[in-house]
Amino acid sequence: MPSLTDNLKINGERLWDSLMRMARIGPGVAGGNNRQTLTDEDAEGRALFRSWCDAAGLETGVDRMGSMFAMRPGSDPDALPVYVGSHLDTQPTGGKFDGVLGVLGGLEIIRTLDDLGIRTRHPIVVTNWTNEEGTRFAPAMLASGVFAGVHSEDWAYSRVDADGKRFGDELSRIGWQGSEITGSRRMHAFFELHIEQGPILEAEGKDIGVVTHGQGLSWTQVTVTGKDSHTGSTPMPMRRNAGLGMARILDLVDQIAFDHAPDAVGAAGHIDVYPNSRNVIPGKAVFTIDFRSPDKKVITGMEERLRSEGTRICSEMGLEIEFEKTGGFDPVKFDENCVAAIRSAAERLGHSHRDLISGAGHDACWINQVAPTAMVMCPCVDGLSHNEAEEISFEWAEAGANVLFHAVVEMAEIVP
Amino acid sequence: MPSLTDNLKINGERLWDSLMRMARIGPGVAGGNNRQTLTDEDAEGRALFRSWCDAAGLETGVDRMGSMFAMRPGSDPDALPVYVGSHLDTQPTGGKFDGVLGVLGGLEIIRTLDDLGIRTRHPIVVTNWTNEEGTRFAPAMLASGVFAGVHSEDWAYSRVDADGKRFGDELSRIGWQGSEITGSRRMHAFFELHIEQGPILEAEGKDIGVVTHGQGLSWTQVTVTGKDSHTGSTPMPMRRNAGLGMARILDLVDQIAFDHAPDAVGAAGHIDVYPNSRNVIPGKAVFTIDFRSPDKKVITGMEERLRSEGTRICSEMGLEIEFEKTGGFDPVKFDENCVAAIRSAAERLGHSHRDLISGAGHDACWINQVAPTAMVMCPCVDGLSHNEAEEISFEWAEAGANVLFHAVVEMAEIVP
Repeated sequence: MPSLTDNLKINGERLWDSLMRMARIGPGVAGGNNRQTLTDEDAEGRALFRSWCDAAGLETGVDRMGSMFAMRPGSDPDALPVYVGSHLDTQPTGGKFDGVLGVLGGLEIIRTLDDLGIRTRHPIVVTNWTNEEGTRFAPAMLASGVFAGVHSEDWAYSRVDADGKRFGDELSRIGWQGSEITGSRRMHAFFELHIEQGPILEAEGKDIGVVTHGQGLSWTQVTVTGKDSHTGSTPMPMRRNAGLGMARILDLVDQIAFDHAPDAVGAAGHIDVYPNSRNVIPGKAVFTIDFRSPDKKVITGMEERLRSEGTRICSEMGLEIEFEKTGGFDPVKFDENCVAAIRSAAERLGHSHRDLISGAGHDACWINQVAPTAMVMCPCVDGLSHNEAEEISFEWAEAGANVLFHAVVEMAEIVP
Repeated sequence: MPSLTDNLKINGERLWDSLMRMARIGPGVAGGNNRQTLTDEDAEGRALFRSWCDAAGLETGVDRMGSMFAMRPGSDPDALPVYVGSHLDTQPTGGKFDGVLGVLGGLEIIRTLDDLGIRTRHPIVVTNWTNEEGTRFAPAMLASGVFAGVHSEDWAYSRVDADGKRFGDELSRIGWQGSEITGSRRMHAFFELHIEQGPILEAEGKDIGVVTHGQGLSWTQVTVTGKDSHTGSTPMPMRRNAGLGMARILDLVDQIAFDHAPDAVGAAGHIDVYPNSRNVIPGKAVFTIDFRSPDKKVITGMEERLRSEGTRICSEMGLEIEFEKTGGFDPVKFDENCVAAIRSAAERLGHSHRDLISGAGHDACWINQVAPTAMVMCPCVDGLSHNEAEEISFEWAEAGANVLFHAVVEMAEIVP
């Protein structure tokens, strides 16, 4: 009988060919993809994936959120399936690998098992979660969130895009609203392969990231209010410069994050000043502080320090400040057995690896609430993602899929 | 014969009534005015002013830039006129006094002289300069700039508004393109009364600002380039956060300005970060530093320090930085005799006063290049201007116009 030795490998060429075939659907303007959720392009991508599942003889299902499931049966009718997957939707100027690698990596596992005639005790189900990106319909990870009971289906259906179209209507329009009750499936485990979307693995020359945690997130929208006044005729001591107050708070945020090195991070990506005119001292600055850490206590502490020290900074400058928590989720600790399966798969296959904390949100972060879950990451060039120039090497994809393969098959148990 | 004693005063009620009558043309949406240059409202305001000049029997002329001149003759045919004035155009959401007070204050001088039957040796000419505001057609102080030879008439005509309309075409359309060669008039002196547009006089309880200098201006557009990256998955030490580099430069600018206290100022009113998304570390920040000082050497020194220390800050953060000088003008030193005439007028009339440096540009700043020039300022509530809520008190307007009256008449010389 075959066993999980280092000569048991997926077919890297077939995986890569499938990735490139999928990338032809919803081409971007700069070599990447625009296959946003619930568009005609999304429907076309789903149909291609379904055709591959059908060709592999898999048993397919679609839930009421449009998430797709394709099962290769196991030998034990009482064994819960091992799920594997990610998402096929992309950012408007997205890459060819973010999400897609995790779905087609899962499909490649099944194709390889078929090639080799290997049976598993647990079924294996490849999954495509609807609307992971959240760009068209906020929030991100919408369908996996409903699956995990984080959001209600009605609330998800009522999400509206920039054109005023409802999620529920668009899901129905493209013909991918299934009848399965969302979240009714029970899982033995869930594994997700994803590109890192960060620079660590490439910088350190590691093939594999073993994701142990997902960072918790806190978004605080800060509004600093001073007084619009003329840049020429207002003496320095009489200014109430909201832009300068913001600048000092941005520096504070950097200090706070570094004080919780190496795992915590903090920055502002969204910054607006008003009236944003060259000869008017800003009377108002609105910006969003993004704090993340794998430790919820650290996040709470960072938020508190932002509020107390930010208030002091503004008070000294004659400015007013308001804080509004506009988003967030708790840190995720992935399942120790699943994480160990990934780490030992990397060892067995001879791939360099390191533990990683996922800085971004992923479907696995929600599924972790309802099933033992873990993630494998592979490097991406220059840490670039959510960008048409997103790139990974053939070798990275192959290594990531092989580690996924070994972890999934270990959990699904080869039948002698 | 009448002499310049403290019982020689303008008619404050008549001045205020004229200000309120003019404010009915081009009403704003919030109690102020929208009488932008070369609009139908501007034409209507000009016609009202012309009707008042005609009623006073003044000799009117219009130059090729549309600037209006209304002369009360002097007794000496060889004496050059004393000019007085400002502008009737407003910001899109402007106040009732910015500019208008200087034109109608000049008209009130002539009405008062007529009331009292006072003759002067030098003619007195009230002026309305076209397009001081520069909001519709940049730059500001356009017609006075052409008058002073700073800009060519052709260049001014070719300025285009947001709808693509040319200044020259719009000037012709509203019927106020005169035939006088712009800048052909010679002046004995020029005086401009204006609201402070800053908070100093009100804060110190002074009635009158004696403007000795106009601040020089330097605009430097700064572009800081880092790398767009995910706020979650990019470790703190690997970030190249252009927004944070900008923040540190904003603090630097504040330090530089305070190091040249009390006259120099510095700030950024224009700030944009890219892509301005809550979960993307800014890869680029573009912002404009506004430095002002009455001393050109100080401005040059501030610019140099911005460049050298800004470059060092960015270099330490792995950021790139570019500087582009996008605007500026030299400091203005007003004529000592004209300034002395204003100061002694304030003394004679018993008004509290202090020397001021004008932080904003004014028509007087350009006319100072071709004639002995000075400015009188009166307080405005809360320093507020370029805002429909701009406000001054009756007493401030009256005091300012009386000081203007005494200074102009002293320079024009009462005929016994």
